[in-house]
Amino acid sequence: MFLALPHMESQKAVPVLRRRGVKAIDLSADYRLRDPDDYVAWYKAPHVDAAGLAEAVYGLPELHRKAIAGAALVANPGCYPAGAILATAPLVKAGLARLEGIVIDGKSGVTGAGAQGRKVEPMYLYTEANENVQAYALASHRHTPEMEQELGALAGAPVRVAFTPHLLPLNRGLYTTASVPLATAASTARLLDVYREFYAGEPFVRVLDEGERPTTRAVVGSNYCDVTVVADPRTGRAVCVSAIDNLGKGGSANGIQNLNVLLGWPERTGLDAPPVYP
Amino acid sequence: MFLALPHMESQKAVPVLRRRGVKAIDLSADYRLRDPDDYVAWYKAPHVDAAGLAEAVYGLPELHRKAIAGAALVANPGCYPAGAILATAPLVKAGLARLEGIVIDGKSGVTGAGAQGRKVEPMYLYTEANENVQAYALASHRHTPEMEQELGALAGAPVRVAFTPHLLPLNRGLYTTASVPLATAASTARLLDVYREFYAGEPFVRVLDEGERPTTRAVVGSNYCDVTVVADPRTGRAVCVSAIDNLGKGGSANGIQNLNVLLGWPERTGLDAPPVYP
Amino acid sequence: MFLALPHMESQKAVPVLRRRGVKAIDLSADYRLRDPDDYVAWYKAPHVDAAGLAEAVYGLPELHRKAIAGAALVANPGCYPAGAILATAPLVKAGLARLEGIVIDGKSGVTGAGAQGRKVEPMYLYTEANENVQAYALASHRHTPEMEQELGALAGAPVRVAFTPHLLPLNRGLYTTASVPLATAASTARLLDVYREFYAGEPFVRVLDEGERPTTRAVVGSNYCDVTVVADPRTGRAVCVSAIDNLGKGGSANGIQNLNVLLGWPERTGLDAPPVYP
Amino acid sequence: MFLALPHMESQKAVPVLRRRGVKAIDLSADYRLRDPDDYVAWYKAPHVDAAGLAEAVYGLPELHRKAIAGAALVANPGCYPAGAILATAPLVKAGLARLEGIVIDGKSGVTGAGAQGRKVEPMYLYTEANENVQAYALASHRHTPEMEQELGALAGAPVRVAFTPHLLPLNRGLYTTASVPLATAASTARLLDVYREFYAGEPFVRVLDEGERPTTRAVVGSNYCDVTVVADPRTGRAVCVSAIDNLGKGGSANGIQNLNVLLGWPERTGLDAPPVYP
Repeated sequence: MFLALPHMESQKAVPVLRRRGVKAIDLSADYRLRDPDDYVAWYKAPHVDAAGLAEAVYGLPELHRKAIAGAALVANPGCYPAGAILATAPLVKAGLARLEGIVIDGKSGVTGAGAQGRKVEPMYLYTEANENVQAYALASHRHTPEMEQELGALAGAPVRVAFTPHLLPLNRGLYTTASVPLATAASTARLLDVYREFYAGEPFVRVLDEGERPTTRAVVGSNYCDVTVVADPRTGRAVCVSAIDNLGKGGSANGIQNLNVLLGWPERTGLDAPPVYP
Repeated sequence: MFLALPHMESQKAVPVLRRRGVKAIDLSADYRLRDPDDYVAWYKAPHVDAAGLAEAVYGLPELHRKAIAGAALVANPGCYPAGAILATAPLVKAGLARLEGIVIDGKSGVTGAGAQGRKVEPMYLYTEANENVQAYALASHRHTPEMEQELGALAGAPVRVAFTPHLLPLNRGLYTTASVPLATAASTARLLDVYREFYAGEPFVRVLDEGERPTTRAVVGSNYCDVTVVADPRTGRAVCVSAIDNLGKGGSANGIQNLNVLLGWPERTGLDAPPVYP
Repeated sequence: MFLALPHMESQKAVPVLRRRGVKAIDLSADYRLRDPDDYVAWYKAPHVDAAGLAEAVYGLPELHRKAIAGAALVANPGCYPAGAILATAPLVKAGLARLEGIVIDGKSGVTGAGAQGRKVEPMYLYTEANENVQAYALASHRHTPEMEQELGALAGAPVRVAFTPHLLPLNRGLYTTASVPLATAASTARLLDVYREFYAGEPFVRVLDEGERPTTRAVVGSNYCDVTVVADPRTGRAVCVSAIDNLGKGGSANGIQNLNVLLGWPERTGLDAPPVYP
Repeated sequence: MFLALPHMESQKAVPVLRRRGVKAIDLSADYRLRDPDDYVAWYKAPHVDAAGLAEAVYGLPELHRKAIAGAALVANPGCYPAGAILATAPLVKAGLARLEGIVIDGKSGVTGAGAQGRKVEPMYLYTEANENVQAYALASHRHTPEMEQELGALAGAPVRVAFTPHLLPLNRGLYTTASVPLATAASTARLLDVYREFYAGEPFVRVLDEGERPTTRAVVGSNYCDVTVVADPRTGRAVCVSAIDNLGKGGSANGIQNLNVLLGWPERTGLDAPPVYP
């Protein structure tokens, strides 16, 4: 069963499903964070289903395919974490990232905010969002701990990220620009090799060739994530960039991929439509 | 005289003006960088007017008002540097910023790129730019050394910034999100005080109240720069945000402000029109 | 006094002003229609200020400059009527239009609808209006009788127009495309002469040269109306096109022009800012 | 074979295919008009393949399904004619339309113009098309004779339409608003019945319920055409409205439908993806 309930509602429904033996893919935030204290800190309320939380698997197949295949409960990632983790995971996993000083800039279309952009509030009016750019939730966005949890698990050590989300004037598309301090000097070519190896065989992550750069238009309407990395020897950092559809790899299409993994179906089932272009 | 020539053309014209005693405000990049080597490094060609370069003043009145008033040659800033410097200068000047690890994310409307968006190239077509987001010039944008020069001068020490520009689907507007590591812990209220003091009396910089955030729509059509800062104790960083019109404070309106300063006119002369909204 | 009250509210306030001898420019629909029955038919409520209605002047200076100058009460036109009347008035006045079969297609940015686009309703959400086009109020828009009243007065006979408004994905801009059956064959050059003569001396109407066509971007942010006409001998019709800013000539800027006429001030007072471009 | 050649190029290639017995679906304008003189009049050049022209079938399955099924050469309609014909055909076919005074207003996204919006010309730049509306090809657009040919065939008498195309700021979407004088008075309900009957069984035309209105967003990404009609007893006219994707029912998706009809495949083959929304 797919659950697309508001945050804090899924944790009331999931225990019922579990008792009946129904496997669930939850699109809310309720089972994404393993540490119950994170819910208190970021969602301002204690979690009421500790058992569910303990068995939930973070539903990013590129990181947890095996666990998802055997899971009873899959927590579909938030849109920003999906983009941010896929942009930086190879660097972190390879030990190439220094774990202090990671800065992540997220940029989302309006369907990525406010009930898929359908929330009837002034911020989401056409005359407010069109021809406008704005940052929001400065130093306080709830997707931050998701990124830290997953990158920390890859690093085997705590990770802190400075994350800033932005609302942009487009319907769909989520773009991530991460600046990651490098533990050791490395060329762009070497970093791209690390990415290609990390994502080898992945049906929905496309590591672009050197010189190419992700664009949201190349992925919108699909489950693809386009990603690249460039070394910046001047600053000792790498810039990691990804583009996804917030309703695709950052939302329900990734949920369908989870379903395919969970049921042992071919992973592209239902996800074969090409991106809409333009 | 205002010069709006392509880069590398102004440095041929300015010596002629100088010999005739004509004061100039140059909108190209030709006199923004004090170190001639930077032109070799970033513009791939040696500078041909060393004398002009030596006497040029960087035309950001908030930093160099007195020098502009007495200048013979004023170099109007690039759009990204205008936004980035105004977003971070108070922190750097106050010694609150650590000089390693500054990350700057720039987001520009299409008139901020490609000959004010009039360059007839595929990248600037409607069907390419609309409903799309993309980073470009990864780790290599020519506005980077401008930021480093001005922030370094404020700091009294070399500064490196990791800068990434982005092209967004809007006509006008330039948004800067900077992540600055703090030298000492400080609250948002304290940082805002530093900003208010730094910009006290400035006619075109508006430090927003705590909880407010800059939007491009509030400044487009004007010479205003809206700015804020938020402390992030979790990461030991501050997030500094500014919004300008790339054709306003990031372009010709700032040039008019320079003219006013240069000629001793009231600084709002010709700049009194309110922002277009929406 | 300017009144910017909801429809049906102005007619309660205006009598108070009139008793005190205060001249008023009303931006609502309450005093635009001379025939009280039209309010019953189109606004579904009887008018409560017959005296005010009797003395109100329709505030389009291009048609009623002298009357506005001496008026106690000026009814600022609706945005669609402003565009439609200016597009077609010269043809109708010159007796070149057949009065049956006039078709007017109106296209408005979002600030032209729903409380200047600030009405917090689903139709005005970004995700509803962006990348979308829709007609609305089919055969029933309340601006229709305004057009018929003013064109009928010019013709000296009743006029019916088939008017269809559309909501387009832009902030500002109102575009009118009118198809008018011609009473006698006439070339485009001849029709343009009629327009040039009709609008000779008008400070805010620009009759374009043959081959040019109006665009909203050329007028947005200003009080200008750009207009052209083309003969279509195949169909015995003319196509009349105008572009205005719905908040400009179609709204408050025209109100300021009315103020200038009313007070005998130079007509461009406060209206001198150039269009925003782009 | 699908041909997507520039106009005037297909007519050179098709004879070669015909000699080899290859069936063709041509996406250019070269075989849409039955009368060779129309090519001289509207395309300013004589047609060089009279034999091909004689046997070509106009590829709108809703009008010519049987002929397409047996055709050797199918001329895929222009985007504006597809929208305009589907909006008005039921009225014309039923004898409810007067054939003089039909006015058609077409509104297209940028992919509907200039080589699917990829023509590298100033008119198609983002800064030209964004936040802008403009009519073009006034009284002279080449899609006009297509509309007149097909509507004339349905009427059994010559039809003239006054057609005006517009370029709107969106990627995809083509909206048609037609004003048709009625031969006899009829209610909206009665007109909708005529539409429902005309399109009964059509897999891709959706006649909306009374009170609903077409929007481009409901069809973009698909082969659907949404259509409605409203009677306007005041003017003795009907307003007929349709929405299509110019690259869908107005372009290649309709070509695929033609392929399915031609080959006797189920008509939705390859056309099953839902519209992108939003």
